[in-house]
Amino acid sequence: MFILVNLKAYACDPLEVAAAARDVAHDSGVRIAVSPPAPALSRVDETDVETWAQHVDPIDPGSHTGSTLAESVAEAGAVGTLLNHSEHRLRLADIDGSLSAADRAGLETIVCANNPRQVAAAAALSPDAVAVEPPELIGGNVSVATADPGIVEDAVDAAAAVDPDVAVLCGAGVSTGADVAAAAELGAEGVLLASGVAKADDPRGVLEDLVSPL
Amino acid sequence: MFILVNLKAYACDPLEVAAAARDVAHDSGVRIAVSPPAPALSRVDETDVETWAQHVDPIDPGSHTGSTLAESVAEAGAVGTLLNHSEHRLRLADIDGSLSAADRAGLETIVCANNPRQVAAAAALSPDAVAVEPPELIGGNVSVATADPGIVEDAVDAAAAVDPDVAVLCGAGVSTGADVAAAAELGAEGVLLASGVAKADDPRGVLEDLVSPL
Amino acid sequence: MFILVNLKAYACDPLEVAAAARDVAHDSGVRIAVSPPAPALSRVDETDVETWAQHVDPIDPGSHTGSTLAESVAEAGAVGTLLNHSEHRLRLADIDGSLSAADRAGLETIVCANNPRQVAAAAALSPDAVAVEPPELIGGNVSVATADPGIVEDAVDAAAAVDPDVAVLCGAGVSTGADVAAAAELGAEGVLLASGVAKADDPRGVLEDLVSPL
Amino acid sequence: MFILVNLKAYACDPLEVAAAARDVAHDSGVRIAVSPPAPALSRVDETDVETWAQHVDPIDPGSHTGSTLAESVAEAGAVGTLLNHSEHRLRLADIDGSLSAADRAGLETIVCANNPRQVAAAAALSPDAVAVEPPELIGGNVSVATADPGIVEDAVDAAAAVDPDVAVLCGAGVSTGADVAAAAELGAEGVLLASGVAKADDPRGVLEDLVSPL
Repeated sequence: MFILVNLKAYACDPLEVAAAARDVAHDSGVRIAVSPPAPALSRVDETDVETWAQHVDPIDPGSHTGSTLAESVAEAGAVGTLLNHSEHRLRLADIDGSLSAADRAGLETIVCANNPRQVAAAAALSPDAVAVEPPELIGGNVSVATADPGIVEDAVDAAAAVDPDVAVLCGAGVSTGADVAAAAELGAEGVLLASGVAKADDPRGVLEDLVSPL
Repeated sequence: MFILVNLKAYACDPLEVAAAARDVAHDSGVRIAVSPPAPALSRVDETDVETWAQHVDPIDPGSHTGSTLAESVAEAGAVGTLLNHSEHRLRLADIDGSLSAADRAGLETIVCANNPRQVAAAAALSPDAVAVEPPELIGGNVSVATADPGIVEDAVDAAAAVDPDVAVLCGAGVSTGADVAAAAELGAEGVLLASGVAKADDPRGVLEDLVSPL
Repeated sequence: MFILVNLKAYACDPLEVAAAARDVAHDSGVRIAVSPPAPALSRVDETDVETWAQHVDPIDPGSHTGSTLAESVAEAGAVGTLLNHSEHRLRLADIDGSLSAADRAGLETIVCANNPRQVAAAAALSPDAVAVEPPELIGGNVSVATADPGIVEDAVDAAAAVDPDVAVLCGAGVSTGADVAAAAELGAEGVLLASGVAKADDPRGVLEDLVSPL
Repeated sequence: MFILVNLKAYACDPLEVAAAARDVAHDSGVRIAVSPPAPALSRVDETDVETWAQHVDPIDPGSHTGSTLAESVAEAGAVGTLLNHSEHRLRLADIDGSLSAADRAGLETIVCANNPRQVAAAAALSPDAVAVEPPELIGGNVSVATADPGIVEDAVDAAAAVDPDVAVLCGAGVSTGADVAAAAELGAEGVLLASGVAKADDPRGVLEDLVSPL
């Protein structure tokens, strides 16, 4: 299982979460990455945690003020990027373009989607992985794998029907080891989580619990 | 073959094109529809031509100022709608939402896409049809079926692999009966065209030529 | 006072509201206009009510699929257009471009804004009028002129400081003649309203009440 | 005069330009800042050059994936931010919101605009400065102060009429000391430039020339 901690634009200290994630990944052998805001990428990368971007734009190097160039996040240490998060939805053509940009810069990719139908569409664009996250469960206390296990299974089936090489992750409401175990049981190869770690009083403790069943 | 004439925001008279399309469709037995700007839908529909919208938004009836509600275009006489034209690209989630809105209002749907990969993604959302239109050929003098026949064949294959019930159309540069014949030869079930008719001195003559090989 | 009824994308019958507005305007001598969805413009205009668009795009005639051309809404009978409604906010440069497009097509313009600072900015672009509508009061039961009279006075002052030729309207929560009278008292030259009429059981009765103090 | 070097998403080495700008600013006493892509902010700041962001979003800390939080760029060392660059145009309400966010994080602000009318609108939102940059001259070889001196004078007058406390900068095509002198002559308090430095073979030499008349 792959655990990706999305720090969004939370008021947390990215370096504290990064250090905890690095340590728990090291101690457990579980793959854990942290996705901070773009201005914090290089400092997070210096902690030696696996570092991901939250977004890259469908652009080549050039005259693009205020955009996020794939090469810029790679130079800052990112090895992968989320795309089309429900808080930053992209046009279909721009997901395609951002995947090309990420590929050009050597970034791994996870395209988020709201439901199995959109998961299939995303899988058709050949990212490394897709993630199903029902928007109504994001930020809540109930894990997608508990609240709506069918959506995870349907997402796994939908992606496999289009391209069996595309991994499926799930997210929304994930905060415990039991949630991770349930996601794995349903066929997910990883989980996205955010507030469960980023807003926790004890991020390290939450991360240790998350990997405990693995 | 289905011939859809997109009038975009051209300075042409929508009613003149509509009358010509109605007559040529009647005389030839070929299905021809006209897609005018939203404010002209009801007047175009009164000519008895098959009338399509150029876009509908992913909204339910309610507090949405300046948006295009599927029910509003249906009440004005539209029986179908284009979505995600390269001049009006939509977010993946909004294509999904607009398809639901169109379905709710009983509208047939064609989702446009730039290349076979995006065609596959669009097909995964289960529209009635997808249309491949390479942006660099739109508005030009060379038909997609001539300039890049492989892209049409690849689009047909890509859609069929995802959902064989989704028809494939092609567009960009189509303006003659030979273009329509070439598109049919490559597996397309219809063509989108715009400037070839809308900017023609003799739209009726162009339409007669378009249907001549069918 | 100018009363503009924005029908948004409500499920109401635009023609019923239009007929009521036409009659009440005629009987009272008060200027009342109706702003329906774009596909209903020409049918609303046929009722002989003053007809406004909800939005026009910053485009010239040409290759723009799914956009709203100023000339198209004018041909459908609109004599004016709202711009930058809080449900359809525009880029600063696009408000400027849409005002040019509206001017080209002979349309009167009202630019909406959330607060007096944005009202001043909008007034600097020289529309015919600006309208202050606090987003948090839109769709509610309390009129802006009652809930926050200071915002209306500040908007009137802010616009006058930038360009005294720009009229100021107000909106949000307006539904009674007392609301209209309060708005006039604060210096507004008109009101925008929507749900108060569009969702009323008796739109004609509401309109008669609205004009009663004038 | 204030010289702001916008590195956009150019393929240049941000640290090389930053070191040159720091040295030339130190040696000449002229204020020079560098605005790199967000992922490079902290490394640029470590060179001790004055560091600016290219954009911040109109958001508070919280659930915003892939957005640019004002506090995040400030923590990375930025002391100011561009807003509404012609390559990243913002909605009027979002310029207002981004200015509030920048203010909250203690960032200085420059709002870009295309013409004197939009300059006046931007000035009404009370940024620290506005910058007039005709889009058709951006990236070219002719300075705005040479190609269209009237637009700079009109922008200075337009801003002063709305708020005399808002400084006016100009940009587009600036690449020599003569351009800077001409801009100062027309009333500008600073210049924005990009390709003139970022794409130069010898950025340090260009910067030395830029400050030579000051």
